Order: sequence, then structure tokens, then C-alpha cells
Amino acid sequence: MRKAYAVIGLGRFGGSICKTLSEEGVEVLAIDTDEDKVNQYANIASHAVMGDSTDENVLKSLGIRNFDHVIVAIGDNIQASILTTLMLKELGVEHITVKAQNDYHEKVLTKIGANHVVHPERDMGKRIATKILSNNVLDYLELSDEHSIVEVVANDRMHGHSIIELDVRAKYGINIVAIKRNRDIIVSPQASEVIQRGDVLIVIGADVDINRFEKKLLGQ
Amino acid sequence: MRKAYAVIGLGRFGGSICKTLSEEGVEVLAIDTDEDKVNQYANIASHAVMGDSTDENVLKSLGIRNFDHVIVAIGDNIQASILTTLMLKELGVEHITVKAQNDYHEKVLTKIGANHVVHPERDMGKRIATKILSNNVLDYLELSDEHSIVEVVANDRMHGHSIIELDVRAKYGINIVAIKRNRDIIVSPQASEVIQRGDVLIVIGADVDINRFEKKLLGQ
Ligand SMILES: Nc1ncnc2c1ncn2[C@@H]1O[C@H](COP(=O)(O)OP(=O)(O)OP(=O)(O)O)[C@@H](O)[C@H]1O
Ligand SMILES: Nc1ncnc2c1ncn2[C@@H]1O[C@H](COP(=O)(O)OP(=O)(O)OP(=O)(O)O)[C@@H](O)[C@H]1O
Ligand SMILES: [Ca+2]
Ligand SMILES: [Ca+2]
Ligand SMILES: [Ca+2]
Ligand SMILES: [Ca+2]
Repeated sequence: MRKAYAVIGLGRFGGSICKTLSEEGVEVLAIDTDEDKVNQYANIASHAVMGDSTDENVLKSLGIRNFDHVIVAIGDNIQASILTTLMLKELGVEHITVKAQNDYHEKVLTKIGANHVVHPERDMGKRIATKILSNNVLDYLELSDEHSIVEVVANDRMHGHSIIELDVRAKYGINIVAIKRNRDIIVSPQASEVIQRGDVLIVIGADVDINRFEKKLLGQ
Repeated sequence: MRKAYAVIGLGRFGGSICKTLSEEGVEVLAIDTDEDKVNQYANIASHAVMGDSTDENVLKSLGIRNFDHVIVAIGDNIQASILTTLMLKELGVEHITVKAQNDYHEKVLTKIGANHVVHPERDMGKRIATKILSNNVLDYLELSDEHSIVEVVANDRMHGHSIIELDVRAKYGINIVAIKRNRDIIVSPQASEVIQRGDVLIVIGADVDINRFEKKLLGQ
């Protein structure tokens, strides 16, 4: 059977989840106490209803226990977020993802059975700060505390040289796993591949090695 | 000379940027109208001061024009965010990153000279929704609209088989660029590498191919 999702709280975070899920064509129920928000998502979600999720009768009448995954994206009202999570759990919802405002909030949510607690502003702050600190990094994926995959723009120093000439593997211990060139992606480029102006290199390696590579070859 | 950063607005997003930058050892000035927030960041940032960034004299007396990069992380008060950005620009700050609340806000910010506009809640909502839709994806990096690098947990169907046996390259058109095993990262694993229980595979490819791989081999 197709999975059904419910999003409680249509702020920027909850609204974005609702929109992304809906665009992927899955069934999404959107719930908010604010009528304007409900109207805003009426044509985006499968259903959008005005209701207070801290009212058990509201949750029951929506048949919330039949949803596979409920996302609680209530922000400033921590008490409402906790009470909602508690009732979802008691009503038997299997997967509950909740947005936390701080560490204390997270602790309580985990204790009462939230399956997944997220800190959108905190995590995005970390991502943005990391990009700000490195002039060359466009985006990245943290593989572990010490390893990452990063997207870096090749500069004039690299342009016109082949991967084997640059010898980044031996010199810096990192690997170029792909190259973004215009609208193409070259996966696992050959050693003979020549770097062109505007190429974006996708490199994998230890953070220290990637830093060394950035400082030396990209001349940060 | 070492670069200096300033963060205006110490909510969850601005606070996290301030903390991450400070942990990397760079100079950070933290500014908020709220005394509690200022006290909270007094020991984290290089300097934390109470002040209203919409007051030009405050910005001037802090010597804001000497900072290389200023991040405006004021939330609900859109007018304050716009006014602050405008004055930073007029005072000659070279890099200004601003948090936007919506598309209209972004448009205005771009017009008045913000160099980078970010939507932390919206972007993180998209990320979380993407992870929710795929049971196996732990994290991902979007390379283009149609290509990604994703982290997936290997399942029992893969366990005990070598990469060459699974033949994911020929069958699904995707590449395993690394394997996370316990605390190790195996970069560019050999074709003879045998998948073990709990391995996390870092795969690169077209989204359609990754989806096919997930559905077939990971038996979603
Ligand atoms: N008990 C409740 N039941 C349903 N919706 C609620 C409830 N309490 C709050 N909401 C809704 O949750 C949404 C998000 O709350 P709020 O705006 O406080 O969070 P936020 O963290 O500032 O949001 P953002 O995601 O934009 O950062 C609001 O639209 C609000 O109306
Ligand atoms: N004019 C101003 N000058 C300095 N700081 C300000 C000004 N206006 C608001 N702030 C501060 O900006 C911070 C963030 O604002 P607010 O809490 O409205 O944003 P938010 O988007 O809900 O935050 P979050 O990042 O937690 O989602 C607050 O700590 C607030 O005191
Ligand atoms: Ca917020
Ligand atoms: Ca790291
Ligand atoms: Ca808020
Ligand atoms: Ca995509």
C-alpha cells in the first residue's frame, strides 16, 4: 500500500517538507492552527485542515494512527510540540519526526518516543558557516568527523592540466570522483581527463588532506 | 591578514553560524538586541555586544566596515533585516549573507546588494523530506537536478558479496565511490571488496539509476 504522511505545523520548515513530499506525489495531510497557512497549502498537500494538534480529539478524528510517518514541525511553542508527540506515540503512530528548538527539547522528545529529532536551523547554520570559511567549497557531504566529499571550483592553476599531471592522489591523498562540466557530470574521470575552466571537482578524502589541497592548489 | 566575521541575530541559525565559525578559530563579533542571547554567546564568540543593527551609529561604532563578511540572521522582523542589509552595503561591507523568510524578502535583499541569500528552514525541509521518502538514504549531496551522491546502508541481500559480484556498475549504472565501515572509510574500494553487515555505501550516479538500485538491491 502507498504510504501516507502528515505534517503538523506549516512554518517554513514544515511547509517545505509538505511541499517536497507532495511534489514527489505521495499522500500528505497538512495540519495547522492558522487558517492562512491551511489555505496556503490547500492546493499543495492532498488535504489541508485547520486544527490544534494538542487536542486529542482532533488527532483521532483525522485518523492520525493510519499515517505511516508524522512530522511535527511546531516551532516556538515547545509545550505544544511535546504534547503532540506524546499523543501521536500513544495513538500508535509508527514513525514520528520532530523539530527541536534546543537540546533540552530534544531530550524530552527522545524520552517520550520521537523516532527522529531534527534541528534544521542549527544544522543549516553549520553548513553555511563551513561554506563561508572555505572560499572554494560550493557544497559538501560529511562522511565522518574526519572525511568529506566536497564540491570545489577548479581555478586557473588547474586549468589545462590533466588529472595525472596534477597528481592530486599522490600529492594530497584525495580522489576526484566526478567532474561537473556545464550540464554534464563525468563520473570517475580518467587520469588523462584535462581540467577545463569552470569545472567543478567532486573530491573525496580526509578533511586535513582536502584542506591542504584547497590551500595549495586552489591558492586560498 | 586574518579574516573577521560578524553575525547579527543570535537565534538558532545565527547562533549556530557563530558557534561553528568560533570553533574553527576565526574572529567573530556577535550582535543581538537581546541581552540574554548576548550573554549566551559571550564565551563563544570573540566579542558579543548588545545592539540594534538598524541603528547606523551602532554599526559604525562597532567598525562594521572592517569586517570581511557579515551574516544577517534576523528572523521574524523582515524590516530590520532589510534595513540592516542596506546599511551594511552602504558602509562598504564586501560580503553580506542574509537569511530570508520568503521569496519576496529574498528579492528585496538581492536588489539592495546582499551577496548571498539563504533559506535555512526551507532547504533543510527539502533535505529531511528527501531522506524520509527513502528508507535507505542516510544523507546525500545533490550534484545536479539529475545526479547525486547518496549514503545508503547495505542490506542482507548485499552482505557477503563482492562489488564485482553485485555488478552495480553494469546493472544500475552507478558507482560505489567509498564504503563506511565502523569508523573507517574505504575510498575507491576494489572490485573484490566484500560488503559486510552494517556497511554504508557512498554511491554516485543519476537519480533514476540510484532509485532503481535502491528499489531492487535494497528491496525497498
Ligand atoms: N498546536 C498546534 N497545532 C497545529 N499547528 C500548530 C500548533 N502550534 C503551532 N502550530 C503551527 O506551527 C507552525 C510553526 O510554528 P512557528 O512559526 O512557531 O515555528 P518556527 O520554528 O518559527 O517556524 P519556521 O519553520 O518558519 O522556523 C505555525 O504555522 C503554527 O501556526
Ligand atoms: N535589529 C536587530 N539587531 C540585532 N539583533 C536583532 C535585531 N532584530 C532581531 N534580532 C535578533 O535576531 C535573532 C533572530 O530573530 P528571530 O528569533 O526572530 O528569528 P528566527 O528566524 O525565529 O530564528 P531561528 O534562527 O531560531 O529560526 C533574535 O535573537 C533577535 O533578538
Ligand atoms: Ca526558524
Ligand atoms: Ca568534519
Ligand atoms: Ca521563529
Ligand atoms: Ca534531484
